[in-house]
Amino acid sequence: MRQFSPVKFNEVKLEGAFWKERLDTVLRTTIPSQHEKLGEYKILESLDLKQPPPPLRFPRNQHNFTVQVFWDSDMGKWIETASYGLSHKRDAKIESQIEAIVDKFEKAQLPDGYLNMWYIGREPDKRWTNIRDNHELYNAGHMLEGAVAYFLATGRRRWLDIMERFIEHIRKTFGPGPSQKPGYCGHEEIELALIKLYHVTKEKKQLDLAVYFINQRGKQPPHYFDQEARARGDDPANYWFKNHEYSQSHQPVREQTKVVGHAVRAMYLYTAMADLAAELQDAALKKACEVLWHDVMATKMYITAGLGPSAHNEGFTHDYDLPNETAYAETCASVALIFWAQRMLHLDLDGQYADVLERALYNGALSGLSRDGKHYFYANPLESIGTAARWDWHTCPCCTMNVARLVGSVGGYFVSHTENEIAFHLYGGISTSAQLKSGKVALREVSNYPWSGDIAIEVNPDAAAEFTVNLRIPSWCKGAKCSVNGKAVPMKKLVNGYLPIKRKWQKGDKIALTLPMQANRIYANPSVNMDIGRVALQRGPLVYCIEEVDNSGGPVQRLKLPRSSSLKIKHRADLFDGVVTLTAKAKAIVHKDWKANLYRTEAPRETLTTLTAIPYYLWSNRGQGSMVVWIPEA
Amino acid sequence: MRQFSPVKFNEVKLEGAFWKERLDTVLRTTIPSQHEKLGEYKILESLDLKQPPPPLRFPRNQHNFTVQVFWDSDMGKWIETASYGLSHKRDAKIESQIEAIVDKFEKAQLPDGYLNMWYIGREPDKRWTNIRDNHELYNAGHMLEGAVAYFLATGRRRWLDIMERFIEHIRKTFGPGPSQKPGYCGHEEIELALIKLYHVTKEKKQLDLAVYFINQRGKQPPHYFDQEARARGDDPANYWFKNHEYSQSHQPVREQTKVVGHAVRAMYLYTAMADLAAELQDAALKKACEVLWHDVMATKMYITAGLGPSAHNEGFTHDYDLPNETAYAETCASVALIFWAQRMLHLDLDGQYADVLERALYNGALSGLSRDGKHYFYANPLESIGTAARWDWHTCPCCTMNVARLVGSVGGYFVSHTENEIAFHLYGGISTSAQLKSGKVALREVSNYPWSGDIAIEVNPDAAAEFTVNLRIPSWCKGAKCSVNGKAVPMKKLVNGYLPIKRKWQKGDKIALTLPMQANRIYANPSVNMDIGRVALQRGPLVYCIEEVDNSGGPVQRLKLPRSSSLKIKHRADLFDGVVTLTAKAKAIVHKDWKANLYRTEAPRETLTTLTAIPYYLWSNRGQGSMVVWIPEA
Repeated sequence: MRQFSPVKFNEVKLEGAFWKERLDTVLRTTIPSQHEKLGEYKILESLDLKQPPPPLRFPRNQHNFTVQVFWDSDMGKWIETASYGLSHKRDAKIESQIEAIVDKFEKAQLPDGYLNMWYIGREPDKRWTNIRDNHELYNAGHMLEGAVAYFLATGRRRWLDIMERFIEHIRKTFGPGPSQKPGYCGHEEIELALIKLYHVTKEKKQLDLAVYFINQRGKQPPHYFDQEARARGDDPANYWFKNHEYSQSHQPVREQTKVVGHAVRAMYLYTAMADLAAELQDAALKKACEVLWHDVMATKMYITAGLGPSAHNEGFTHDYDLPNETAYAETCASVALIFWAQRMLHLDLDGQYADVLERALYNGALSGLSRDGKHYFYANPLESIGTAARWDWHTCPCCTMNVARLVGSVGGYFVSHTENEIAFHLYGGISTSAQLKSGKVALREVSNYPWSGDIAIEVNPDAAAEFTVNLRIPSWCKGAKCSVNGKAVPMKKLVNGYLPIKRKWQKGDKIALTLPMQANRIYANPSVNMDIGRVALQRGPLVYCIEEVDNSGGPVQRLKLPRSSSLKIKHRADLFDGVVTLTAKAKAIVHKDWKANLYRTEAPRETLTTLTAIPYYLWSNRGQGSMVVWIPEA
Repeated sequence: MRQFSPVKFNEVKLEGAFWKERLDTVLRTTIPSQHEKLGEYKILESLDLKQPPPPLRFPRNQHNFTVQVFWDSDMGKWIETASYGLSHKRDAKIESQIEAIVDKFEKAQLPDGYLNMWYIGREPDKRWTNIRDNHELYNAGHMLEGAVAYFLATGRRRWLDIMERFIEHIRKTFGPGPSQKPGYCGHEEIELALIKLYHVTKEKKQLDLAVYFINQRGKQPPHYFDQEARARGDDPANYWFKNHEYSQSHQPVREQTKVVGHAVRAMYLYTAMADLAAELQDAALKKACEVLWHDVMATKMYITAGLGPSAHNEGFTHDYDLPNETAYAETCASVALIFWAQRMLHLDLDGQYADVLERALYNGALSGLSRDGKHYFYANPLESIGTAARWDWHTCPCCTMNVARLVGSVGGYFVSHTENEIAFHLYGGISTSAQLKSGKVALREVSNYPWSGDIAIEVNPDAAAEFTVNLRIPSWCKGAKCSVNGKAVPMKKLVNGYLPIKRKWQKGDKIALTLPMQANRIYANPSVNMDIGRVALQRGPLVYCIEEVDNSGGPVQRLKLPRSSSLKIKHRADLFDGVVTLTAKAKAIVHKDWKANLYRTEAPRETLTTLTAIPYYLWSNRGQGSMVVWIPEA
């Protein structure tokens, strides 16, 4: 296995307009406003142990579950996001807000290291009795990710120390010993967090605990969650999901071949599996990841890289079930797909992973965050009749901080390297450097990506040296061209979607890469019956949609795009501080002559019109209205 | 208000092949097999009071509700259906089965007349404490309909006596008096049943009780269901539906202008409202019916006359929300729409009501019963990817007996009359007679309807007399022609969809009516965004669908019907004992060159094929497979 490592996100300076704006918005608006929401929604108050505990703000649902059990994770994720902010720019107010949270967690932590505000505050005698549903280890994972990020941003170790004590407690609690529980969390997350901790502390025991959880998952009989249910006096048959596919624990992970269950749970699991495949050089685990990857890519991914069509299980159903209007496609799932894709990419430098990473980043994930940085989508439908609207918060606010932490650390996805290779995965205007065996190489990539595919890269090694620069040529791109210092590089050298340029690089070497950005029509496999007769538009990495505000004449469901219409690319400086729209001659179905008739034998009349499409991630930033990604093709 | 009355169903002999076959199947198979199912599913056992009561066969759902509370209604409906069978042909075995049920109801009835097996057997102290949810009056209504039908079929009064005692108890319990409850049932039904009782006994008090329930409905504040909830120690805010639209009790009925809530509840209510509008000559009530009729027709009815898109409330959502694959369109709702349409038709002889009655009868209702007479659809989707299948019974078996009682009494929908007018609403081969002021008129209508529109009617008055024969000219028909004794009747005389022929009729007069049955393409209002770019096929009253078994090459979702393709009518003697299919040149999207690609830029290839459509009501009689009503139009 070829092992690439990403350049640290905070060592990547975002200079291009697109990501600079998104990052600035997250730093300036999203992080402070999310702290306010944590206050407003009483999440921070859960740190103040009160007797008796206050009434539930979010009552238990029909499955006897309240979202309040994962409030610890929300605070953990906010600390992580805020720490990414601090990595970019120290901020005394944010730091004091983090410290105030850490103070209270520290005070609440039990002498044995246990730390969970729900159980400590409300059900102290019930801890570790329902890890299928109640997210104790999931919370620990997000708190740990936050602690790692805060340590890396500030060097302060207190929060990490607290979490390490908690992890010690978890290590004592779970394991093969006679007094230990052979369990694992119903919501995967701690596994990937432990690997992050291992990367900081290099302690093998942290990796071992992640391996234990991964290897235990799905072992049976007996199934741990059934054992656990019986132990607390519950009938396993009462489990609302009926089987363990919901938490990907229906089989040992190496035997799993189909992507099932809750989408975010699945993506967090596969991320940890791919991480471990790399750390352990475990070919079987890597193979399992590849099989699962193939399954989701061939049958289960929206064109936006949204995952999980169903609200019922927040997850997967059957192959090719990709309804548009009711698409759940949780923001978190696309964010987590980015994590998984990055891990796969570092196992094999293969453009298929980077293509999906990019697709999720610019579409299904980014759509979750509004232009103003404080409104969100939890579900990301591909069609709306005008009823969908962004939230300023959510009962379960997981997505709000997931998309924010993604943007806060987005620099980490652009460039990776080995000892003697550099790989550019994304473009968008960055400067960074990579430490190769031969010495440090400063890199600067200048572009107006994703609006333009004209890319200039400066390669500046401290001293001239031979190494390889791999440039990703996206699969959406036809006719890419590349030159070094004005001399063409033949594109036939492409390997798995990357153009490797191996040479002796000198200070001041210049790569010119041109990725022509034609507007493409995309069709779905006919097995996706919802999209038959429909076409989606894409330019560069951006999937487009038509929104009512740009298209007069009622709901955009009434527009048809003739196959013969050419797609015109328009740079619009007046819209969203500059975007590229696509326009085309189209047909609009006439409604006004229908009166009160619901049915008639005369075909609807059609008029000629012009259709205007905007990037999908920007929809629902100008009030409510209808929206369509898959446009009927006339 | 012009007042037509239907000819009694058992005085209409079904001689045409279509209805003869359906009725024979119900008599021979459906009625006996449903009695078996009542046994198999322990519904009959609920008549045997056991202490302690046996465990629930169907556990309470998340709303603390079990379908077992309406088992009495299932037995009432089976008795009603079986009695319709007896009206056609006495059968000692069926009669003894009915008598055995009546024996047990009689034995269980309390001294004060109360009769409900759920409450008597399980919660005797809780009767009349939750009529919002627990169906006591609804059950009484179906038991009463059964008692009326059994009395009319056999002249035996015992079951009717039992029910009249129960109704006396209900009359004492509900009303404006200080010791009475000002309530009404959460599931309408008893209102229309009381009117049926009134028609048999002519006692005004039965009509008055129906009027009381109708007039009380939706009065507030306080709302009766809220009062009742508080009285039993329940918080009205816990009501799962959150508001009273579910049971059409959100407003007094005369103020209601939008069709809302549970579809079957709504249709039963409107049926009773229209009944009372006629009985009371109540113009305001009639107006309310007309406003509601317009609302459902303009915005909420599937082309199959299915009603209620949503499984969540088994009912209505927002205007134009008519999803195909997830259509709930409960069989009972289409059956009940037929009841309502018939009442409207008897208020005004207007073809719009008969058109809908016919549409519901031949499509949304009849689809609920299989060819073999013992498999059912509860929900009637307009599209399937192959997962839908008929049931041999249902947890809540309401639809099974609703469609059976409809077929058992279908003769009652063909002909109505006043003192001096006769109206033919449906055709299909019947003989009957109508008692006019001038004397008795024997009528014989000979046709192979709905497969052919060539109709011959013999009018045989006992003595020559002047009266009017009104012939319905369906709105789907263009170019109808009519003659009496060979002499053309000008079609310009058409009034509200009926051709009135007023003349001095003589024995042996012959009407020839030709209703050309072209195959029509039907389009949906563009506000129904699910059907944009799609076309439905209809011939005569039958809506068609394409089913996988008739169309090779995978799911029928991949077929497109060019607008230019002509529809060919084929009489197929080999299929379902003779049906008319529609065929057309079509395009099929090619799937095999897609391999594992989920998306691609190349448009799907298409091949030419022939599409074969069958009547919708016949779908899912040849195993599982995909099905589409609204076909993409190329």
